[in-house]
Amino acid sequence: MTDTTDPSLRSFIEVPPNHDFPIQNLPYGVFSRPDEEKPRCGVRIGDFVLDLRVLEHADHFRDTPLGDDHVFCKQGLNKFMSKGAAIWHAVRDRVSSLLRVDNATLRDDESLRQRALVPAENVTMHLPAEIGDYTDFYSSKHHAFNVGTMFRGPENALMPNYLWIPVGYHGRASSVVLSGTEITRPCGQTKADDAEAPIFGPCRLLDFELEVGFFTGPGNTLGEPISMAQAADHIFGMVLVNDWSARDVQKWEYQPLGPFLAKNFATTISPWVVPMAALEPFRCAPPAQDPAPLAYLTQSGAGGAPGGWAYDIELEVAIRTPSSDAPHPVCRSNFKHMYWTMAQQLVHHSATGCNIRPGDLLASGTISGPTEESYGSMLELAWRGTKPIQFPTGEERKFIADNDTVLMRGWCEADGVRIGFGACDGTVQPARI
Amino acid sequence: MTDTTDPSLRSFIEVPPNHDFPIQNLPYGVFSRPDEEKPRCGVRIGDFVLDLRVLEHADHFRDTPLGDDHVFCKQGLNKFMSKGAAIWHAVRDRVSSLLRVDNATLRDDESLRQRALVPAENVTMHLPAEIGDYTDFYSSKHHAFNVGTMFRGPENALMPNYLWIPVGYHGRASSVVLSGTEITRPCGQTKADDAEAPIFGPCRLLDFELEVGFFTGPGNTLGEPISMAQAADHIFGMVLVNDWSARDVQKWEYQPLGPFLAKNFATTISPWVVPMAALEPFRCAPPAQDPAPLAYLTQSGAGGAPGGWAYDIELEVAIRTPSSDAPHPVCRSNFKHMYWTMAQQLVHHSATGCNIRPGDLLASGTISGPTEESYGSMLELAWRGTKPIQFPTGEERKFIADNDTVLMRGWCEADGVRIGFGACDGTVQPARI
Repeated sequence: MTDTTDPSLRSFIEVPPNHDFPIQNLPYGVFSRPDEEKPRCGVRIGDFVLDLRVLEHADHFRDTPLGDDHVFCKQGLNKFMSKGAAIWHAVRDRVSSLLRVDNATLRDDESLRQRALVPAENVTMHLPAEIGDYTDFYSSKHHAFNVGTMFRGPENALMPNYLWIPVGYHGRASSVVLSGTEITRPCGQTKADDAEAPIFGPCRLLDFELEVGFFTGPGNTLGEPISMAQAADHIFGMVLVNDWSARDVQKWEYQPLGPFLAKNFATTISPWVVPMAALEPFRCAPPAQDPAPLAYLTQSGAGGAPGGWAYDIELEVAIRTPSSDAPHPVCRSNFKHMYWTMAQQLVHHSATGCNIRPGDLLASGTISGPTEESYGSMLELAWRGTKPIQFPTGEERKFIADNDTVLMRGWCEADGVRIGFGACDGTVQPARI
Repeated sequence: MTDTTDPSLRSFIEVPPNHDFPIQNLPYGVFSRPDEEKPRCGVRIGDFVLDLRVLEHADHFRDTPLGDDHVFCKQGLNKFMSKGAAIWHAVRDRVSSLLRVDNATLRDDESLRQRALVPAENVTMHLPAEIGDYTDFYSSKHHAFNVGTMFRGPENALMPNYLWIPVGYHGRASSVVLSGTEITRPCGQTKADDAEAPIFGPCRLLDFELEVGFFTGPGNTLGEPISMAQAADHIFGMVLVNDWSARDVQKWEYQPLGPFLAKNFATTISPWVVPMAALEPFRCAPPAQDPAPLAYLTQSGAGGAPGGWAYDIELEVAIRTPSSDAPHPVCRSNFKHMYWTMAQQLVHHSATGCNIRPGDLLASGTISGPTEESYGSMLELAWRGTKPIQFPTGEERKFIADNDTVLMRGWCEADGVRIGFGACDGTVQPARI
């Protein structure tokens, strides 16, 4: 297996320092080339995309466990995701090897390089998978506490089930879109507390939610849960997620069946799926869980795995207003703050026997940390509109305004190696009404 | 357009009286033949399945608006659903015409008949569509009132939003299964009111929910809502739905984000999609809505369309216990009782700009009528376990027991013509633990 922790690993493709996509990362995505319409799978390295379909056709995976199986000619990584961890690692090893500075195979084959390496600026990105089902969790205790405090006071902030269950809900898969897709301000029903009746019109309290999500691997047969011991084999890789939320719509609609229209108009993800192998050096112990979770959710060993089931991923949200060129940072958080881990989310999700399919997307829920600047939504950052966020331009924001761009970034860093997630951006367009 | 109201319409295929699938019905489904593995689309008539792929290959749709487009060789009706109402009607007209007793084209072509007509008992049915997203509503006011009464008392039974919003939530698409699929009793977390901590184990309060659902047509682009005037063009046809529910799991988990594991282990649907054209004669006026819905949800004209946006569909649920051969009827309801209509559900769903795709499934929510025998779930029929249902065998049930089979039927009937939905059955297997 590739030693992704080796900071001396280098590619013959020059990657500037602090770039999101060095050879230690190698995230997967789906792209189309300028010279051909049909999308296929690729790996990002520096400012290039490595076309895996070309490598597949040139038999560069034939002697790996993937063999002759063609999985990269698809519009979607689903088939590759279905193959499981042994094949993911073998393919990653081969790709890493082919890109190494000391391997002549691709480096010195001018013709293959011409076909296999496409400048990233020339490609069109597509969703990394056909997302069968999208599930959104609520796994930051800080976020749940903040929102609960606003609506029910600090003494009743957490629901009685919160410390027992990785609470989640089914989201809308059709409206998951890629970074860069414009977001239309949704219309919906809202009702002022003192109004007799609701009104229909553009959302006035449009929010972002800073999240990450993971794509699932082989999955399980209906009726056969995934156990904690099996969880790692079903987690393929991670992306950034902006779970756009219409707070005023949510407030009026969410009882008793949960958020529906407040969340179904768009969810933005970053296009490159960072494999778990690249994140391995950044595993850490999750926060202590008290009460101890029930047996089926118990993570074995210290933190459940070498290094633990949490991941030290730095996260940042900035907003660019129309009157300013520079994005203004509004939030700095970290994925390691989450109370419930990805493994616990997955195991809980399938505990009923619910079948997970390759390419399902499970998102974390808003990633708020313990401090005020680490809150992962405008609702919390501006504390329900009571503490507007000040911008260097003199503007202020309680929620997202039309033509604002929300930019999310995420990265891990150690020993001079940065594993980045790329961009997860979206600009809000005025409502169509 | 086929005059589906014509009770004198007859096919050369003999269909017994009171059969679910006379020539006036012609529901669509996906099946595989005994002699070929690859699933394709078909139409049910009497005890036969008409293979639409064979007709397509024999150019029987070439002179219709469908033209040369091959849509029936797929595993899923999605592509056909995407074509829209004009093509649905043209294909239905052609199929109906080919099956008429007075049309010699198929009737007298022995070779084509041999290829195109397969005995229904010999085929394997598959899901009628690749379901992109599954949404479940809560549109029976009687059901919402009953459940609300149990949990909050009759004076607070309906949430303040109920009469304004067709309340719904995103369901789990991966676990939608066909009639006949065995249902494994799910495990999950439950907590007794007087217990300090929850436990994990088999659901003890397993329930059915009597519902119907519709498959969607062409759908909309993200950001562009479907209006009430456009709704009919996006509703392809209907199936029966059993939204299996783990009531004890639901009670503990559902705050604040709604049902999740309580519903994600299985949803059973009937395999034949009854086209809206076949149901046209059974349209009726929906119940009066007071307060009047907001403008975007207002159904124009008397009831919104000729005959109104409700449908007079008789519904029945029976349970067969292991110690009895005969199913015992436990519920008799009717779809016309629903407070919110399918058109209102669809328009509300997309009001934010949420994109509906061909083959999405939108289910009604439990269809409880005004009387006790018309309640659409065990929770209501046995009123939270306080009025167990008595069986002729001397058994009683508060909820569903292992090895019980729940059978749902639905039909419309007028002038001696019955438009039936076929079977929506599921047998509960013991939990795997």
